Amino acid sequence: MQHASPDHSSIPDVVTDASGEKLARAATIGRGVPVLAFDVGGTDIKSALFDADGTALGLRRTPTPVSGGAEGLMERLAELADELKEQHPLVVPEAVGVVVPGIVDAESGIAVFSSNLGWRGAPIRDLASARFGMPVAFDHDVRAASWAERVLGGAREYANSVVLIIGTGIAGALLIDGRPYMAGGYAGEIGHSPIGEWPCPCGARGCLEAVASAGAISRRYAEATGVSIGGAKEVISRVAAGDEVAGQIWNEALDALTLAIAQLTAVIAPDAVVIGGGLSRAGDALFDELRTRLADRLSFHRIPQLVPAELSGNAGILGSALRARDAAEGKA
Amino acid sequence: MQHASPDHSSIPDVVTDASGEKLARAATIGRGVPVLAFDVGGTDIKSALFDADGTALGLRRTPTPVSGGAEGLMERLAELADELKEQHPLVVPEAVGVVVPGIVDAESGIAVFSSNLGWRGAPIRDLASARFGMPVAFDHDVRAASWAERVLGGAREYANSVVLIIGTGIAGALLIDGRPYMAGGYAGEIGHSPIGEWPCPCGARGCLEAVASAGAISRRYAEATGVSIGGAKEVISRVAAGDEVAGQIWNEALDALTLAIAQLTAVIAPDAVVIGGGLSRAGDALFDELRTRLADRLSFHRIPQLVPAELSGNAGILGSALRARDAAEGKA
Repeated sequence: MQHASPDHSSIPDVVTDASGEKLARAATIGRGVPVLAFDVGGTDIKSALFDADGTALGLRRTPTPVSGGAEGLMERLAELADELKEQHPLVVPEAVGVVVPGIVDAESGIAVFSSNLGWRGAPIRDLASARFGMPVAFDHDVRAASWAERVLGGAREYANSVVLIIGTGIAGALLIDGRPYMAGGYAGEIGHSPIGEWPCPCGARGCLEAVASAGAISRRYAEATGVSIGGAKEVISRVAAGDEVAGQIWNEALDALTLAIAQLTAVIAPDAVVIGGGLSRAGDALFDELRTRLADRLSFHRIPQLVPAELSGNAGILGSALRARDAAEGKA
Repeated sequence: MQHASPDHSSIPDVVTDASGEKLARAATIGRGVPVLAFDVGGTDIKSALFDADGTALGLRRTPTPVSGGAEGLMERLAELADELKEQHPLVVPEAVGVVVPGIVDAESGIAVFSSNLGWRGAPIRDLASARFGMPVAFDHDVRAASWAERVLGGAREYANSVVLIIGTGIAGALLIDGRPYMAGGYAGEIGHSPIGEWPCPCGARGCLEAVASAGAISRRYAEATGVSIGGAKEVISRVAAGDEVAGQIWNEALDALTLAIAQLTAVIAPDAVVIGGGLSRAGDALFDELRTRLADRLSFHRIPQLVPAELSGNAGILGSALRARDAAEGKA
């Protein structure tokens, strides 16, 4: 697949995500048929119309409807689509991409389970096909994001890679021999891979994300000190300032991430682990530490490249649009 | 690929492995071109000529040469081949399979590293091609064994599966979308996936096999009690007889295996984990315990089927022969 050649003169002006310019630059997927794309999250929906140049038009966030289930969501997506088409009447989409969180069986078009959205067995692809009357690409949000990183971002050069998005939780996706690995939607749950014995709200024990997500780092610091702070970023700056509690919590998060990546290394031996999400903005404080600890912990293993994700908050909708292009060409 | 239809009247009479009848029955790979097959281990070489019915002729074990490196090995394989051809002059092999342990880059034909055989970067496929003058299939022994389990054995019904061979150590191989997953030879090292902090002779910390292999169970019992015993099987029978030390060591092995399989479940979500090697002969004492502990440890995850490997000690040479057939057909 062709890589995008971002045209900075056509940067959409509605990109408001915290990571700024780089994110905006990446909001293009290269030339192809126009498509509609949605990235549905637990709290908001990102929507955009991608034109023939691959530029995101009208990219914005709106709240996810709290009721109405999958049907209610379809109504909302149709409204958003109508607004986009009204604003850009000359751009006629030929397919639509819908990506959602949870357990997603992309092959059968079913949203198997989402705790955030309250779904079980929702036939999203069929509902969207009926509603939009055009080919629908339906996928998992993080798998779609990993595909965008593969085509346009940090995983470009790595056929076998693991994409980890470390934010409120930890989500993952596997790219095997250059393609997203499906396994009925159950693969890539690295955030809920057990590596210890502590309780996790999911019901399992020792899940990685309960210690190593940005959300966990921030929450654990607040629990240990009674001080509520602005997020993992602040915990990390307190480490540099000599705060011992912050140091311990950050150390435990790094050890947990190291262990999880060491296991991925032994079992899957990816060429790269591509790390995105809020925690990846810690930069060297994260990446250099993980590299040192991985080398210390392993022996004959082939240690993967650790590289930052490049598409940040937009990876999901870019992946949605890329998959929609595939659907328009009969490939999805 | 076609499944073998074992013809019990043609069971080779030289199969001497401990697991008996089932193993002997499986020593056929179905109809196809005749091939030579070798399974080279650290201590012995299995060799056989497979005829057009897929029956192993002259299957036997002979010692691996201790000196001479890769060239010395080739000489020995050529001698074994000459003997087989002399005994069965009407069976004319069209390709040869060579499988070896260690880190094996099957795609480039290189035995990257083997501590047992003392190799680094040995160009086995080219050496064998020059020596035999016919197409050569070269692969990792456990990956070849997993392929035999996929075609003929316990993994037949599972496109995504992990094969674990638990013996002196723990070796693994991944089948992804029905095919062996390569990753330059570094994938599947589940025995050296870190799950704790204990030292491992490989130089890493917390490797699974240092606690959960049959070899480790037996060694740890001897270390704890001063009593040298006949292997993990005896430790497990002592558990049933109320031996507390045996109970603790077996419990730790089961917990470690459960944790490792739980991680595979979260990350890869295989349809099945196929378990072979000496420890798999513990039967229900192993499989039922692992099923119970996995269900207890996980939550929304899709727990894989845990099934016994079916080809036991012959999986490696059967895989070697299957891969040789592929090579004869220009597929390897």
